[in-house]
Amino acid sequence: MMKILVINCGSSSIKYQLFDMTDESVLASGLVEKIGTESAIIKHEPAGREKKVIISEILDHRVGLKKVLDLLMDEKEGVIKSADEVSAVGHRVVHGGETFARSVVVDSEVRRAIRETFDLAPLHNPPNLIGIDAAQANLPHAVHVAVFDTAFHQTMPDYAYMYPLPRILYHKYKVRRYGFHGTSHKYVSQRAAEFLGKPLEELKIISCHIGNGASITAVQGGKSVDTSMGMTPLEGLMMGTRCGDIDPAIVPFVIAKEELTLSEVNSMMNKHSGLLGVSGISSDMREVMEAMFDGNANARLAIDMYVYKIKKTIGAYVAAMDGVDAIIFTAGVGENAAQIREKVCEGLTFFGVDLDRDKNGMRSKEIQRISTEKSKVEVLVIPTNEELMIARETLALV
Amino acid sequence: MMKILVINCGSSSIKYQLFDMTDESVLASGLVEKIGTESAIIKHEPAGREKKVIISEILDHRVGLKKVLDLLMDEKEGVIKSADEVSAVGHRVVHGGETFARSVVVDSEVRRAIRETFDLAPLHNPPNLIGIDAAQANLPHAVHVAVFDTAFHQTMPDYAYMYPLPRILYHKYKVRRYGFHGTSHKYVSQRAAEFLGKPLEELKIISCHIGNGASITAVQGGKSVDTSMGMTPLEGLMMGTRCGDIDPAIVPFVIAKEELTLSEVNSMMNKHSGLLGVSGISSDMREVMEAMFDGNANARLAIDMYVYKIKKTIGAYVAAMDGVDAIIFTAGVGENAAQIREKVCEGLTFFGVDLDRDKNGMRSKEIQRISTEKSKVEVLVIPTNEELMIARETLALV
Repeated sequence: MMKILVINCGSSSIKYQLFDMTDESVLASGLVEKIGTESAIIKHEPAGREKKVIISEILDHRVGLKKVLDLLMDEKEGVIKSADEVSAVGHRVVHGGETFARSVVVDSEVRRAIRETFDLAPLHNPPNLIGIDAAQANLPHAVHVAVFDTAFHQTMPDYAYMYPLPRILYHKYKVRRYGFHGTSHKYVSQRAAEFLGKPLEELKIISCHIGNGASITAVQGGKSVDTSMGMTPLEGLMMGTRCGDIDPAIVPFVIAKEELTLSEVNSMMNKHSGLLGVSGISSDMREVMEAMFDGNANARLAIDMYVYKIKKTIGAYVAAMDGVDAIIFTAGVGENAAQIREKVCEGLTFFGVDLDRDKNGMRSKEIQRISTEKSKVEVLVIPTNEELMIARETLALV
Repeated sequence: MMKILVINCGSSSIKYQLFDMTDESVLASGLVEKIGTESAIIKHEPAGREKKVIISEILDHRVGLKKVLDLLMDEKEGVIKSADEVSAVGHRVVHGGETFARSVVVDSEVRRAIRETFDLAPLHNPPNLIGIDAAQANLPHAVHVAVFDTAFHQTMPDYAYMYPLPRILYHKYKVRRYGFHGTSHKYVSQRAAEFLGKPLEELKIISCHIGNGASITAVQGGKSVDTSMGMTPLEGLMMGTRCGDIDPAIVPFVIAKEELTLSEVNSMMNKHSGLLGVSGISSDMREVMEAMFDGNANARLAIDMYVYKIKKTIGAYVAAMDGVDAIIFTAGVGENAAQIREKVCEGLTFFGVDLDRDKNGMRSKEIQRISTEKSKVEVLVIPTNEELMIARETLALV
């Protein structure tokens, strides 16, 4: 019986999920927060049982993971008897640079290569590697697999991933488009093909992963051929707090006018822009929508801009692939905000999109077609499941 | 007999053209270069006669323009008898900010407003105003009209011109999309409607002004509804030496890595990127194409990127307008590079674009339809004429 633990580490957090891969069921999941403090929090949820919240001192990821394993093996409420039952661990790693076009078993080569990407993802990759260390210390007999957010996009052609900057920047620093959310885009495009009963190889899919972070990917024949995020997750769509595309000349302009440091301008673009910056209300789509319905003009503008940028990006990818068979909405906003989906689709009739408003309005935890019978483009809402995809990728390498 | 002089001033140059507006014919045109030196150059071309090149000391624009007027009134080869025959002067002004949604007669109010835009266009607007001063000194009785590159785009809806940045940047510094090449986009879209024999009000046009600088505008019902250049002419397409859109996070990344000043990073993005930066060969499309045909891999990449970005922008605007009736190619590359037009159009069949390769290959100085009879989208090559458009705008205000 193959059990796989999936781990996603932030600088002070561990998200985890334990799968039984015989039926892909979740045995337990949870979250450790505030690692590095005396009042760290573990929220642990064994399948079908009550959620537990434990507050205790957890000074590093290794101890945090130890406590998680203890909970998983708890005599009364545990879901496994021994740590040896965990035959593999799948680690989410944000940035695989150009080195990783697929998931890999972690060895010293891989560790070194991940370290080399620190420059490209200084906020994410170091804690990801700390998580790998912590898991290897606690589960030395398990196979550890790194699954990269960027790997799916390594199939992009050079004219899609290169920037029109002096070549030296690519050669010296690997400045190029990488793209993110790859695990999600890959998962939902496979699900779409299954659902439509068509071979993925024959489909042109536009996958809209719209959460707090958001990106759109053009998936042609199962391969990512373009994606809206770039060297970093800042580029592309307007997001909860990120600006996405702007005139690059605005960056030096604002640095000069406001006398900002580089870290301040990065923070402005990543944390104080997007829905939050324009609405002045919140980065949460639900709150901005509420404000819009209450007549708030800034909220109206923020949502119009948000929707418009999604539409333009879809149009760009229809041109890039010279066609589209299916448009997928996934992630927090994509799965739940029916009004956003409606606003995006209502202006895409020229592409043959015909939305079924009733179906679009229905809530579902399952995959759902929200286009009409006569729509030339299938429009699907697909709940993403990055953890399951990481578990599958891991299983394939064990 | 209405004669209008059209002037376009750079920091050390004056481009000029004298029109007889009774039949819109050009009486003379020319260029003054290296103003501020002892060896300034005037290249003067009276219609139907030989071009003259005169080298002399010209220390400022006022003197430069005086010499141009002397040439225009020359006893033997002049085209007018007295400066009084010039009843109006049309001045190209790059940036009109939010103040100017149309051309205006220059008065002290207008002068002040132009001065207020210096921050937004520090390289262009100061010499434009110097040109106005010089012309008013030389032609005090003429009506002086300012025609703005940005004015045509002032019809964009807020969700197209606002950036997803903190609102304060708009309120404090007017950070927003303005767009440029407005005079050209307006001219060619009017020409397209005339040529097609359809009212401009009913057309959805995508106007591709592809020169050394390049921008694409979505023109719906005769109004600009979106355009690819932004607060500055850096945003959008890949150009001769400008990068266009990039991940904005690259800007602080490169500043830090290469220890650049703000002016250096601006220079990198504006002068050392685009076709030149990627090909390493030239900013001139003809030279890059030649290198590509000679098998140069960097040139091939540069051209693939260049074409791909045009295609994606067209797709975005098809989505923005939910349709397209006509695509226009204009300006240096757009009018002359048949291979670029072919590469752009060959992947747009989904939109109903069907290119007539033979017609596309023919050279012409006139407006030309290069799509087939069965194409659902009209594809037109239209020679732009910004000077004539400025003269017309000026005439309308006299």
